[in-house]
Amino acid sequence: MTAPLFNRLALIGIGLIGSSIAQAVRARGLAGEIAISTRSEETLRRAGELGLGDHYVLDAADAVEGADLVILCVPVGANEAVAKWIAPALKPDAILTDVGSTKASVVAQIAPYVPEGVHFIPGHPIAGTEQSGPDAGFATLFEDRWCILTPPDNVDKAALERLSNFWTACGSTVDTMDPNHHDLVLAIVSHLPHLIAYNIVGTADDLETVTKSEVIKYSASGFRDFTRLAASDPTMWRDVCLNNKDAILEMLARFSEDLSALQRAIRWGDGDALFDLFTRTRGIRRSIIEAGQETDAPDFGRIKID
Amino acid sequence: MTAPLFNRLALIGIGLIGSSIAQAVRARGLAGEIAISTRSEETLRRAGELGLGDHYVLDAADAVEGADLVILCVPVGANEAVAKWIAPALKPDAILTDVGSTKASVVAQIAPYVPEGVHFIPGHPIAGTEQSGPDAGFATLFEDRWCILTPPDNVDKAALERLSNFWTACGSTVDTMDPNHHDLVLAIVSHLPHLIAYNIVGTADDLETVTKSEVIKYSASGFRDFTRLAASDPTMWRDVCLNNKDAILEMLARFSEDLSALQRAIRWGDGDALFDLFTRTRGIRRSIIEAGQETDAPDFGRIKID
Repeated sequence: MTAPLFNRLALIGIGLIGSSIAQAVRARGLAGEIAISTRSEETLRRAGELGLGDHYVLDAADAVEGADLVILCVPVGANEAVAKWIAPALKPDAILTDVGSTKASVVAQIAPYVPEGVHFIPGHPIAGTEQSGPDAGFATLFEDRWCILTPPDNVDKAALERLSNFWTACGSTVDTMDPNHHDLVLAIVSHLPHLIAYNIVGTADDLETVTKSEVIKYSASGFRDFTRLAASDPTMWRDVCLNNKDAILEMLARFSEDLSALQRAIRWGDGDALFDLFTRTRGIRRSIIEAGQETDAPDFGRIKID
Repeated sequence: MTAPLFNRLALIGIGLIGSSIAQAVRARGLAGEIAISTRSEETLRRAGELGLGDHYVLDAADAVEGADLVILCVPVGANEAVAKWIAPALKPDAILTDVGSTKASVVAQIAPYVPEGVHFIPGHPIAGTEQSGPDAGFATLFEDRWCILTPPDNVDKAALERLSNFWTACGSTVDTMDPNHHDLVLAIVSHLPHLIAYNIVGTADDLETVTKSEVIKYSASGFRDFTRLAASDPTMWRDVCLNNKDAILEMLARFSEDLSALQRAIRWGDGDALFDLFTRTRGIRRSIIEAGQETDAPDFGRIKID
C-alpha cells in the first residue's frame, strides 16, 4: 500500500462537498486521518453517525492543528471569519484551500490572514447536486469533473503539485486560472443559470391565472428542468450573489438585453429571427455531450425507454 | 383479443410525437391499421423503414380516407394548410384531433374547415424529449404523462369518450380545459422555460470574455440543464411563439420584472431578499417529485452514485 498523500486532512464545513471529499478520501486512502469541524452541533453529530472522519470538533482551530491539508467547505460568505479563527493554529508548510464558487472574493477575504509559510491555493471543484448537507455527499461526486485552482503568481510549485495530485486522485481533472477569469466563467456557466432558475420558479409561484397545482401537474413540459437548480442551497447561493456581484450583474445585463430582442421578435412575429436563435443553440448541447459533460439519453435518461 | 378502439388511424406528420403514437398504438393494438402521411419524401421513407405504419402516402387526403381517427402531428403553424387539404376527404363521424403545444390558435386555424359530422377535439399530450424526427419516437413516451383535451362546448360526448379512452390506453391521464386556459398554463410551464433556455444558451454563445470551450468544459455547474430544452426542434418552437404570442409576452413581462427585482437585490447587496427567494423555490421541486412528475435522484440521476 502506498503512503497517503497527506497525514492529516482538516475539513471545515461538512455539507454536500465536505462530506463527498471525506468519503472520496476514505475510499481512496488519500489521508492518514480526517478531522472535521462545523459550526452546528447537530451537523457535527450527523457527520459522526455517518463515520465521515476520525476527529469531530466544534473548534475549527483544533481541527486544523497538525493538518497538512486544510479545506474550507463553508458558504463563501463565511470564509473570512473562519480564516481569522484558524490562522494562528495552521501548521507551517500546510496547504490551505477551499471549494467556494467564487474566487476573487475568497482571495480578498482569506489571504490577509494566511501566516507566512502556509500555502494558500484557492480551489473550486465543479461538481455538486441540488441536495445539501452531509447526508447528500458521496465518494464519486468528483469523478470525471473539473477542479479549478487559482494559485497566486508566487505559488510554491511543490505545494501546487501536491494539491493537484489530491484532486486528480479524487477523480477530477485539474485546471488553473486567474481568480477574476474564474469568476467570469462561473458567472455564465453556473451563477446566471441558477439565478434564472430561481427567478422563473418564483414567477410561476406568483401567478394568479394559473394554479400552483397546474404548474406541478404539467411541469414535465419544460418547467421541471429548472426546478433542480432552484432547489439548491439558499445560503450558498445568497453568498455567491453577494461575492461575485460585478460578473453576475454583467451577465444578467447581457441576458436581459438578449431577452428583450427575443421578446421583440415574438411581438412582431419575426419567425426567421426566432428560427435562427433556436437553431444555433442546438450545437452547444452536442458539444457538451461530446465533451463527456452530459448524457446523450433523451430527457437526461429519466424517462422509461423500451 | 379485444377489438381495437379504432379501425383506421391516420397520422399526419411523423416526427417524435407521431412516431411515438404509432409505436404505442402498435404495441397496444389500439387501431386496426395505421396510415401515415408526411410532407417530406425522405421522412416518409424512414417511417417505412422503421415499420411505423401499414400505409405510407405523400397525399394527406389519401391517408385520412376511411380513417375513424385522424391525428395531426405537425408543427402548429402547418395546421391550417393541412386542415384545408384533408377536409374534403374526412369520413363522417371521424374524430379529428391534434397534438399541438398551443390550442386557441389551432382551433382558429382548423375549425373553419371541419365538415359537418366530423368531431374536432383538439389535444395536447404533455410529453416529449429534446430529440426530433421519427427515429426519436418510442412506445412508452406517453406513460404516466398528462394529455390535455380542449373539447368545444357542444362536443359529442361519445366521441370525447372514445378519444379519452385512446389516450388512457396509451398510458396517459386525460384532463380537459378551455383552449385559452391551456395556452396560459403552457406559456408558464413550457413556453417560457424553453425561451429562457434558448436565450441563455444564446447569451453564452456570444461572450467575448469567456470562450465557448470554457462554457462546454464547465457546463456541469448549471448551464447544461438548460441546453436540453435549447436543443428542441426549432420549427416547432418558432411556431409556438408565433401562435401563443399574447400569453407568452405576458409571462415574459412578468419574468423580466421579477428578474429586475433580483438584479436590484444583487446590486444593493440585499442578502435577505435573495435568501427568501432562494428558499421558497425549493418547495415547488418537492411537490413535483411527490406528484410523480420528476425523479428524486440527485442531478436527475445522471451522475454515478456508489
